[in-house]
Amino acid sequence: MTQNYLRADGRAIDQLREVTITRGWSEHAEGSVLIEFGRTKVLCTASFESDVPRWLRGAGRGWVTAEYAMLPRATNTRSSRESVKGKIGGRTHEISRLIGRSLRAVVDLESMGENMITLDCDVLQADGGTRTAAITGAFVAMADAVEWARAEGHIRKNAEVLRDSVSAVSVGVLPDGTAVLDLPYPEDSTAGTDMNVVVTGSGDFVEVQGTAEGAPFSRDQLNELLDLAVTGCAQLDNLQREALSR
Amino acid sequence: MTQNYLRADGRAIDQLREVTITRGWSEHAEGSVLIEFGRTKVLCTASFESDVPRWLRGAGRGWVTAEYAMLPRATNTRSSRESVKGKIGGRTHEISRLIGRSLRAVVDLESMGENMITLDCDVLQADGGTRTAAITGAFVAMADAVEWARAEGHIRKNAEVLRDSVSAVSVGVLPDGTAVLDLPYPEDSTAGTDMNVVVTGSGDFVEVQGTAEGAPFSRDQLNELLDLAVTGCAQLDNLQREALSR
Amino acid sequence: MTQNYLRADGRAIDQLREVTITRGWSEHAEGSVLIEFGRTKVLCTASFESDVPRWLRGAGRGWVTAEYAMLPRATNTRSSRESVKGKIGGRTHEISRLIGRSLRAVVDLESMGENMITLDCDVLQADGGTRTAAITGAFVAMADAVEWARAEGHIRKNAEVLRDSVSAVSVGVLPDGTAVLDLPYPEDSTAGTDMNVVVTGSGDFVEVQGTAEGAPFSRDQLNELLDLAVTGCAQLDNLQREALSR
Amino acid sequence: MTQNYLRADGRAIDQLREVTITRGWSEHAEGSVLIEFGRTKVLCTASFESDVPRWLRGAGRGWVTAEYAMLPRATNTRSSRESVKGKIGGRTHEISRLIGRSLRAVVDLESMGENMITLDCDVLQADGGTRTAAITGAFVAMADAVEWARAEGHIRKNAEVLRDSVSAVSVGVLPDGTAVLDLPYPEDSTAGTDMNVVVTGSGDFVEVQGTAEGAPFSRDQLNELLDLAVTGCAQLDNLQREALSR
Amino acid sequence: MTQNYLRADGRAIDQLREVTITRGWSEHAEGSVLIEFGRTKVLCTASFESDVPRWLRGAGRGWVTAEYAMLPRATNTRSSRESVKGKIGGRTHEISRLIGRSLRAVVDLESMGENMITLDCDVLQADGGTRTAAITGAFVAMADAVEWARAEGHIRKNAEVLRDSVSAVSVGVLPDGTAVLDLPYPEDSTAGTDMNVVVTGSGDFVEVQGTAEGAPFSRDQLNELLDLAVTGCAQLDNLQREALSR
Amino acid sequence: MTQNYLRADGRAIDQLREVTITRGWSEHAEGSVLIEFGRTKVLCTASFESDVPRWLRGAGRGWVTAEYAMLPRATNTRSSRESVKGKIGGRTHEISRLIGRSLRAVVDLESMGENMITLDCDVLQADGGTRTAAITGAFVAMADAVEWARAEGHIRKNAEVLRDSVSAVSVGVLPDGTAVLDLPYPEDSTAGTDMNVVVTGSGDFVEVQGTAEGAPFSRDQLNELLDLAVTGCAQLDNLQREALSR
Repeated sequence: MTQNYLRADGRAIDQLREVTITRGWSEHAEGSVLIEFGRTKVLCTASFESDVPRWLRGAGRGWVTAEYAMLPRATNTRSSRESVKGKIGGRTHEISRLIGRSLRAVVDLESMGENMITLDCDVLQADGGTRTAAITGAFVAMADAVEWARAEGHIRKNAEVLRDSVSAVSVGVLPDGTAVLDLPYPEDSTAGTDMNVVVTGSGDFVEVQGTAEGAPFSRDQLNELLDLAVTGCAQLDNLQREALSR
Repeated sequence: MTQNYLRADGRAIDQLREVTITRGWSEHAEGSVLIEFGRTKVLCTASFESDVPRWLRGAGRGWVTAEYAMLPRATNTRSSRESVKGKIGGRTHEISRLIGRSLRAVVDLESMGENMITLDCDVLQADGGTRTAAITGAFVAMADAVEWARAEGHIRKNAEVLRDSVSAVSVGVLPDGTAVLDLPYPEDSTAGTDMNVVVTGSGDFVEVQGTAEGAPFSRDQLNELLDLAVTGCAQLDNLQREALSR
Repeated sequence: MTQNYLRADGRAIDQLREVTITRGWSEHAEGSVLIEFGRTKVLCTASFESDVPRWLRGAGRGWVTAEYAMLPRATNTRSSRESVKGKIGGRTHEISRLIGRSLRAVVDLESMGENMITLDCDVLQADGGTRTAAITGAFVAMADAVEWARAEGHIRKNAEVLRDSVSAVSVGVLPDGTAVLDLPYPEDSTAGTDMNVVVTGSGDFVEVQGTAEGAPFSRDQLNELLDLAVTGCAQLDNLQREALSR
Repeated sequence: MTQNYLRADGRAIDQLREVTITRGWSEHAEGSVLIEFGRTKVLCTASFESDVPRWLRGAGRGWVTAEYAMLPRATNTRSSRESVKGKIGGRTHEISRLIGRSLRAVVDLESMGENMITLDCDVLQADGGTRTAAITGAFVAMADAVEWARAEGHIRKNAEVLRDSVSAVSVGVLPDGTAVLDLPYPEDSTAGTDMNVVVTGSGDFVEVQGTAEGAPFSRDQLNELLDLAVTGCAQLDNLQREALSR
Repeated sequence: MTQNYLRADGRAIDQLREVTITRGWSEHAEGSVLIEFGRTKVLCTASFESDVPRWLRGAGRGWVTAEYAMLPRATNTRSSRESVKGKIGGRTHEISRLIGRSLRAVVDLESMGENMITLDCDVLQADGGTRTAAITGAFVAMADAVEWARAEGHIRKNAEVLRDSVSAVSVGVLPDGTAVLDLPYPEDSTAGTDMNVVVTGSGDFVEVQGTAEGAPFSRDQLNELLDLAVTGCAQLDNLQREALSR
Repeated sequence: MTQNYLRADGRAIDQLREVTITRGWSEHAEGSVLIEFGRTKVLCTASFESDVPRWLRGAGRGWVTAEYAMLPRATNTRSSRESVKGKIGGRTHEISRLIGRSLRAVVDLESMGENMITLDCDVLQADGGTRTAAITGAFVAMADAVEWARAEGHIRKNAEVLRDSVSAVSVGVLPDGTAVLDLPYPEDSTAGTDMNVVVTGSGDFVEVQGTAEGAPFSRDQLNELLDLAVTGCAQLDNLQREALSR
């Protein structure tokens, strides 16, 4: 397999879709980012609160949590609202937990003090990779909320709350065996193996979640996928940095 | 009270906020509109389905329904997700029903055939008037979905599905007794009387919902508010027409 | 249209059904009223509590709230219990909120002290106008609860808790264009426009909720309906006064 | 212990409270009864439907089921609505099932055809013995619904649907060891043993549910309680018969 | 009917199935018992907590409660999980309440101090009599938890927490009129009358719950069933005693 | 790091706990296995049904799904029942989905015909690794259910339904940096990185789920963990084979 391989949307196998990070998209939240991975659009807002969940009170540490959701018509066919069904599906729960864990991995909860940041990641339009876009955008929104809290005096001036940055990307194996980076829905829905990888700015792993949808995958394929993911996240890390420096 | 009266945001008492109607904001839905009434932003998507709810099957008529929701951080402080709480609040229910009724009032359900249009109105950012923006935007999204369905052959070519247009606006009485049009949140939260009025393109009423939050209101005040609302909806009707002609 | 117009039940267009207000129908509650608007029967109980909801504690004010419900066989065909379905429908929520707002409009919450009155309005038999009967009866039950609380020393002797009285009535436009007062179910289900109006004893409006079920309504029709409603509520105000003086 | 023993309300130990059975209290249902055991008031409506639950379709038999509920202020202190809490409590479930079983015990489901009767037993005011009043009243409402269905041709003219009558009563042991019949709330809440007994018109048992709230009870006490219950139900059977003959 | 009557599984009419009581089956709980009544297997764990439910705080007394549940495939056909359905069925509620009441009947809550014991009775395999096995096993698990708490100093050394022992058994009338003890599922599902009886070690009754599934039962049949139950519980009492002495 | 490293329970770093697989533990299910990984005990039952979920009807393929749950006192402190809370937590959902996916990866759904197998994995006692034990045990239960269905004629005699076997194991990095296999709760709760790996009998990956609980992990650590997991699963594969050959 070579770099000349052409994907349906014309990208190289190790090429990200166009990624746009718009800070301050929404005015009320302490941090807010509209992140786009191609046609996937996720609104990430960070809400800062000078309190922690009950089970953490008095421990002198902060907390970071996330909730992921999709608008009913973010996808090609309308799906029922989870609020109307009266319960949250397994996929929603799983992704919310993943986002929360990924962000906490780069936060020094002690230096946050007894404060909480809630990341709401609402998918306005879906075209594959919504959870990885959410993690990547939520990190930027969280960074803005931390700076807001520092400016307002809720967090100590010189506390190093963010120990590192974090971003995520999907990788997968197409039916013809080609491993590719950042899958849009048409690729994602036919991929034999699907993997979401969360990587820090310094290149270590926070989460590796690989699933064989069809045939199981070999150690070699796994390595190939991890290589692609590390490359992709390095680019995302740059984009985050640029966005935060604007 | 004269037209010289100045509101906190500098508008005249009978002046709408800046209204923007962006068609096709989201790519999957048969109709989609991002409508803005000042800082209030509502994404309205219209989903067309060649089926009707079970209770209507075989009746030879169509159906139009709506679901309204707010993102958790659309407002100044974060509110819990209704999907997480496991139930929909009274306010959400009430507004969803209002939007559905308002749209059905201008649709000839018989000429739709056994098809259904679902309007999802998701408030991305709230600053007062979210339900009236939702009705106004949803009408445009519905009109696009009807044309899509006509082009696809789901609705007869010459069926006059939309008998009229419909828009909505809020009016209210400020603490000093001044009646004003299209209230942003700071005015809305202090208004003594709050009224939402839904008006057709031809100037008749679909809904009149007036509530005394503080002191009850007189017949004279009611008339003054209705005058303002009729004026405001006439302007919204023009904006809808322009948007649909682009 | 003249006063000679005859309705299906023989009433004049501006005539209420026979209204009966029975105080003390139930023995446990601090106030309890069985109110009948013709065949519509609603049991309204007022429960007094020396506490307020959590969000109001320490504010030095009281609270009045309401819950509306229908017995499963209050109507012509049995409907499922909302407790069995595990959630409350939109209509129930909407009416509960309307009753609460209507009553609070005539209560001086400050002079109540940190006390709460809950009005339970349970429809034992329905024949149209259940929400207007509920508001009218609930006011009387609330008045009894206030007197009970005064006698027991929970409310100051000379506190003027009730600033005014409040009652409600439905008005609507029949298919032949006639505007009528206090619609029983057969009229209500065919009416083109349906309006519920809540009026204080001194004749001002607390709520005006008009809905075009079929064709939108004109300003003239709206005025005609409001005239009828004001007339009807004046009669209901008299009946409340009589009941309270017995 | 002699018949001279005087209870708090002046009754003899084997004396029922005043029992009133009002047929046709509510106009919509196929059978409806307001039954009063002293201050306990239960509205029992029987809804007839020409259908059976899905699991019974095609079996050629009918079904009888019941739902029991209490208005929030039926008791001395207000309890939360189960519809608002979103789930039905264990006690409610238990009593609904008891009423359904008790009625089915005297019904020949085969001769009903594929029809269903639902008994709604709503406690409007509670003073002990609500489940026994419900069973006793529901039988009468069911009998009326059966006659209605026969007259309407849903049930065969000469089908003997009701094989027997059924009624229920509570018995209990007071703190001083006295066994008494038909306990009002003050006795019920202090009784050491509490028993509800459901008896057919011919004197056999359908249900015997005895519970030691405090000290366990002996075989002798059990026998004494059963004697009282059989006596009480025989009187209720007479009252049902009288009511049905009016 | 004589002792020579042979049941499908070869037992005499007054003979229990083989009963096995295994203490300490599970390692985490303060008391844990796997109890088997023939093929019926119930795991009963007793969890001790140094706290009481909120409504009991400050009263100086303890509490004992129980939760009963069945694994989805404990029975012959799989049933849906109540956690997945999102609500607990009436039968589950009813049995949980029965177990809790039965155990509290032999506990001196005062001498427990402000401590709580929760009995979880999970049916791993069902073949009739699950609730009676649960009560019988839960008593042993509770006794172990009480001793644990005494050893740990949560309960006073010489406090007589358990005033008596308690066990339970089912009895019923087979279609041929024979009254039998301890019914497995095949007998239980065809029995005309079904009764669960809870008896203390000293032979008094805690609960008597008899239900006519088919024909109502006479006073004589009731007496015969009670005789069998008392005999059965005396044997269970011995088995509990043996288990606790090991 | 050498093989001489000693863990708290005396095992080598690449040593499994004692694994026991008991087939036929429960009598009703078409396949049932009690699997033990040290003190972790999971009961896996496989229920066969000649039907598929609605969305799959007519597609000519079968389905395999799983539900995971924990008894309230499977753990060291009692947790609330999800049936009582009325909703399933995120962790439960996530694990149920993981088990289902893992099993489907080795099943040829086409050759199953329109049949469904549901795996219920109930944790009776938890000491780390419950999800990996569940997958490993569920495969054996599923294999038994497939053979049952073949014998009963529900599945074609020579259909190769199971394309491979599948097992799972946890690996992790202890605080001192040592990578270890099959973590019991005390190790699991302090591990910096936690990974669950699902491997087929032929040594390919079905799922790789690695999470940094504390510090992110490097590519080298990831490789070391994967080596351990592949070794562990090879041993589990042998144990499954032995169990199935008995």
